[in-house]
Amino acid sequence: MKALQYVKVGAPPEVREVPTPEPGPGQVRLKVTAAGACHSDSFVMGLDKETYVGGFGYPLPMTLGHEGVGIVDKLGAGVTSVAVGDAVAVYGPWGCGNCYQCAQGKENYCERAADLRITPPGLGHDGSMAEYMIIDDPRFLVPLGDLDPVENVALTDAGLTPYHAIKGSLGKLGPGSVAVVIGTGGLGHVAIQLLRALTPAVVIAVDVNDDKLALAKDVGAHHAFLSNSDAPAVIEQATGRKTVTAVFDFVAAQATIDLGAALAGVESDQVLVGVGAAKADVGMLARPYDATVRAPYWGSRGELIEVLNLARAGLVHVETERFTLDEAPEAYRRLHDGTLRGRAIIVP
Amino acid sequence: MKALQYVKVGAPPEVREVPTPEPGPGQVRLKVTAAGACHSDSFVMGLDKETYVGGFGYPLPMTLGHEGVGIVDKLGAGVTSVAVGDAVAVYGPWGCGNCYQCAQGKENYCERAADLRITPPGLGHDGSMAEYMIIDDPRFLVPLGDLDPVENVALTDAGLTPYHAIKGSLGKLGPGSVAVVIGTGGLGHVAIQLLRALTPAVVIAVDVNDDKLALAKDVGAHHAFLSNSDAPAVIEQATGRKTVTAVFDFVAAQATIDLGAALAGVESDQVLVGVGAAKADVGMLARPYDATVRAPYWGSRGELIEVLNLARAGLVHVETERFTLDEAPEAYRRLHDGTLRGRAIIVP
Amino acid sequence: MKALQYVKVGAPPEVREVPTPEPGPGQVRLKVTAAGACHSDSFVMGLDKETYVGGFGYPLPMTLGHEGVGIVDKLGAGVTSVAVGDAVAVYGPWGCGNCYQCAQGKENYCERAADLRITPPGLGHDGSMAEYMIIDDPRFLVPLGDLDPVENVALTDAGLTPYHAIKGSLGKLGPGSVAVVIGTGGLGHVAIQLLRALTPAVVIAVDVNDDKLALAKDVGAHHAFLSNSDAPAVIEQATGRKTVTAVFDFVAAQATIDLGAALAGVESDQVLVGVGAAKADVGMLARPYDATVRAPYWGSRGELIEVLNLARAGLVHVETERFTLDEAPEAYRRLHDGTLRGRAIIVP
Amino acid sequence: MKALQYVKVGAPPEVREVPTPEPGPGQVRLKVTAAGACHSDSFVMGLDKETYVGGFGYPLPMTLGHEGVGIVDKLGAGVTSVAVGDAVAVYGPWGCGNCYQCAQGKENYCERAADLRITPPGLGHDGSMAEYMIIDDPRFLVPLGDLDPVENVALTDAGLTPYHAIKGSLGKLGPGSVAVVIGTGGLGHVAIQLLRALTPAVVIAVDVNDDKLALAKDVGAHHAFLSNSDAPAVIEQATGRKTVTAVFDFVAAQATIDLGAALAGVESDQVLVGVGAAKADVGMLARPYDATVRAPYWGSRGELIEVLNLARAGLVHVETERFTLDEAPEAYRRLHDGTLRGRAIIVP
Repeated sequence: MKALQYVKVGAPPEVREVPTPEPGPGQVRLKVTAAGACHSDSFVMGLDKETYVGGFGYPLPMTLGHEGVGIVDKLGAGVTSVAVGDAVAVYGPWGCGNCYQCAQGKENYCERAADLRITPPGLGHDGSMAEYMIIDDPRFLVPLGDLDPVENVALTDAGLTPYHAIKGSLGKLGPGSVAVVIGTGGLGHVAIQLLRALTPAVVIAVDVNDDKLALAKDVGAHHAFLSNSDAPAVIEQATGRKTVTAVFDFVAAQATIDLGAALAGVESDQVLVGVGAAKADVGMLARPYDATVRAPYWGSRGELIEVLNLARAGLVHVETERFTLDEAPEAYRRLHDGTLRGRAIIVP
Repeated sequence: MKALQYVKVGAPPEVREVPTPEPGPGQVRLKVTAAGACHSDSFVMGLDKETYVGGFGYPLPMTLGHEGVGIVDKLGAGVTSVAVGDAVAVYGPWGCGNCYQCAQGKENYCERAADLRITPPGLGHDGSMAEYMIIDDPRFLVPLGDLDPVENVALTDAGLTPYHAIKGSLGKLGPGSVAVVIGTGGLGHVAIQLLRALTPAVVIAVDVNDDKLALAKDVGAHHAFLSNSDAPAVIEQATGRKTVTAVFDFVAAQATIDLGAALAGVESDQVLVGVGAAKADVGMLARPYDATVRAPYWGSRGELIEVLNLARAGLVHVETERFTLDEAPEAYRRLHDGTLRGRAIIVP
Repeated sequence: MKALQYVKVGAPPEVREVPTPEPGPGQVRLKVTAAGACHSDSFVMGLDKETYVGGFGYPLPMTLGHEGVGIVDKLGAGVTSVAVGDAVAVYGPWGCGNCYQCAQGKENYCERAADLRITPPGLGHDGSMAEYMIIDDPRFLVPLGDLDPVENVALTDAGLTPYHAIKGSLGKLGPGSVAVVIGTGGLGHVAIQLLRALTPAVVIAVDVNDDKLALAKDVGAHHAFLSNSDAPAVIEQATGRKTVTAVFDFVAAQATIDLGAALAGVESDQVLVGVGAAKADVGMLARPYDATVRAPYWGSRGELIEVLNLARAGLVHVETERFTLDEAPEAYRRLHDGTLRGRAIIVP
Repeated sequence: MKALQYVKVGAPPEVREVPTPEPGPGQVRLKVTAAGACHSDSFVMGLDKETYVGGFGYPLPMTLGHEGVGIVDKLGAGVTSVAVGDAVAVYGPWGCGNCYQCAQGKENYCERAADLRITPPGLGHDGSMAEYMIIDDPRFLVPLGDLDPVENVALTDAGLTPYHAIKGSLGKLGPGSVAVVIGTGGLGHVAIQLLRALTPAVVIAVDVNDDKLALAKDVGAHHAFLSNSDAPAVIEQATGRKTVTAVFDFVAAQATIDLGAALAGVESDQVLVGVGAAKADVGMLARPYDATVRAPYWGSRGELIEVLNLARAGLVHVETERFTLDEAPEAYRRLHDGTLRGRAIIVP
């Protein structure tokens, strides 16, 4: 079968012919119907050899793709909870299945994954950018039903990650609340829709150019402003409030984290979803009372089902561009160059 | 190997020699170290043939025992998340592993178990009252560590069931609250300890004889009263309050449900844990504002880990009497006759 | 000034000339800008003399109206937290202000109101159907801002009551959930909007005639069905699910309570908002696991602010018909006859 | 009457003869039975003139004392919800009573207090260190009942502040959790008791000398360790876990905030209760997933009732030393010098 593989550190990914894999006992083989390309793949492929080997050490060649949907194609021995022909979405952040976190379906926070060297498909072992893929356990499969594979595959990460981030702040986002989304790209434009679907909050988008702001308003932001030093003032003008209830920061660089801190009010949440780190002032003399900061990661198995239910209800939609497997290297080039409108989806 | 089996509807269970089972792909074999005998086994064995066949239809002969702990003895093909030699407890209310409830570890509320005919071990297929037992998936195993098997096996049901019941009311059981436990037997005497460990509530036990009340006070009840028409008055006298915050009813007959309703205050919870049914008055003109009634069932995978953590911290202890497998029929006789002090544990 | 008063048990209310009241120390006088007529007024005026005197005993004559908005007109001595000229809404379920419930703003569940004979305005002492009304404490006033008085006055009860009912079930009404509203009148048609604004649930309205169903769909119900024995089947057909997540019952008669019980699924909430009572089956053998029943009452001070914030965001709207104070007796006649479309609002 | 007043910036407080105050409309006069001396008083009195005037500007002379209990002595006009002779505790963080926060009893986070120049007694206007004090509204009074005034007065701040801090993390402090208390003085030694009363967590105290550690163990800490660079290693050894669930930091200096960050695990809470500020690393690459940081302040009206309920149940006790009003300046000297064992209580 064909697969898009990362072969050599620093080199672009290649479409290669590889053996079609067989499911072992307890495993499931999918015929992949769609796979999403994600910034985190680019991030990993952008690392130099030393960092890659020291920090991640994923064995190469490795088929890319941690967002995947497909049709159950073959069952390994002993599998009974899914059936051949089922349309399914792949839950990506695999865990051990037995620890306290996994026992609640929060395998994204598995306590033993690092020790057992368990990794998501496409980030450590072969992923979804191939004609077929192997799933280690049927519990990583969620019914897709008649949701369109191409339009919805990105929900497994670009939907689930902002969903988990927002869900952790849902109790604060009641009537009269204000939520700010910083960065309205692949994940951010989904976050705006999720906030509209799940809360009565006023939703404000902040980004660096007018095209992004236009998209933000198209998908439901009440207001959209440029990310500059005027942002706090224009937000205050728009809402009549000096501070906001929650900031979802899909950039998470020093500048956006500073902006979020400037906007945060009493009992607010500053949620850093982007892959980053920065210095922040904390403590009673530095920040409004009970204002929190946190950085969530991906989401739980139950939350993936919830996200797909939102799609079923027509409440969330991902902007996508479609590529064949042969065109997949091009998809990553354009992802890297920032010239995609929405998410690049590979259709094998 | 030896097993205690229910062989014929209406007849007492028998100790029989049966083949030692082999784990299939994805399964795990345990060497059983302890198994608990439960009223629900007696309930099933007390059904007449028509009700048994029509309502449950568990195939016979069936090895009893839905409370079990053991040592991982042999792994089926493909199993990697537990290892031979691990001491484990068995999570009993098995589910499909894939539905929304199972995705959160709430397999006790699996949406597909009935359709797929998935049942707990000992209640539909072979259980823990044997030298060895088969576990269908390693996710049903929870680390036992160095907890004593005999003293803690009953926590898998007699601990988990009241824990789940109490956890659902935890938000209400803050400082100044009052919790009433009706029925202080196998589950109730654990409930009292759980309430003391998890909440600052005043805990009041209600039962029908003085021995039970003495046990209730031994395990931590602040007050213990006979279950009669004076109960509401003596509870008011003891607490200085006309109503209580939560009632955990391990009998759930019409009389105890009526008592619970008489005690329930505004925003209280009446939690029916016993296997029963009754008529109740509901509605704004019939019951204090926002007073709820509900009947939970067993508990989730995460909650079982939590219960074992309480045992590790010395916060919960089950009264037990120990029997060999050969003595197991006698254990059920004494369970039926009500002459056990605490839980009967079979040690194969 | 003019006031609509209930003068004699059993007789219709009368418009009468009464002295304009003066605010005492700590009190506030409002110039009333709108007052809502409610079924509970009719309920009280429909009681026979024995029940009225024995059960309520409100002193007569009494100015009607527990829904009110107005302009702060005069401050009693010592009042500083509101100012003359402020547009405000009146929080109706007054409490003592000091007990545990009142300390959280849940004065609807005040622990001492009955003992201290504290009652809502219009239900025990003079209410809002007059040119002026007295508020016992400024904490019962919530800023109305530039919300239209006539269109929003009913939110103080017809908005707040369903809001409180729904808020108690919000944690269950996530993606994929189904909420049923039984009775789509004054409170029910607001409940539909609240469910749409606050949750991603599928919302199903059930009522007894097609006009009501049309209104239900106008205000946002996804489906609307007649309340008859087919209802469970058509709801299953519409949702693809055998049971629902929550039922909000604004009738709360035996028939609707039975319907709600038939629809309720595992972990569901059956919320009885109508003034009623009935028998229900409870217990593990009678009802799905962890399915609750409760009957809430009105709402908290914080919740009233939340409801007005929803109105500010354009997320909730009450259908109204406008009457002068002189026409108020006619409004109650039409309320009694069921010929109003929406809420009758008195504009003094 | 006698009062302990702060008279001149930089000078020690003085016992002075002042007129006995009269309650205005809506106010209440208390005969003070006990008043607590707090580090925050020392903090304010330690400021130089410029900072004091610029940052706080409390008018002088000002009677000290924001912890107070007393007997209701005289009612201002219009007050009905408390009665002369009631034993009460004073809720200190006064608010406007009308904003969204105050409507929920969270007057500590009043949205308008700064604008309206509303301050706590003893921190902006006359407080509890006098024979009598004036309370602006009866809602600031909580029933004390037969709790001993001297032993319990400090619960109004030294109890309420850690209670509020812990309550915000209660959902995480289930079975198997670990809580660390840094700084086991006036507030910290209460925090240890609260954690034991409210949670099944393992409680670890960290402080700088052995006397403090001994007190920590006396009041219920499972372990107590010196605050040095070995702390993370000894905590891991004691708990068998590399990270902890929550850190309550009553010092909140750079060193303790760094220690807390080093201990924090996935989904943990780092709660900064001490008056301080520091730099911290935040973001997905800097801190465990979903680990939060926040700095709460004092507590709500409902929480004060909860704290007193804990005292009633014998679950919390404050170490105190007793002083007359004439000895009060000495109490502050010893507080400043750190030679008090527990809280200094002034008995007028």
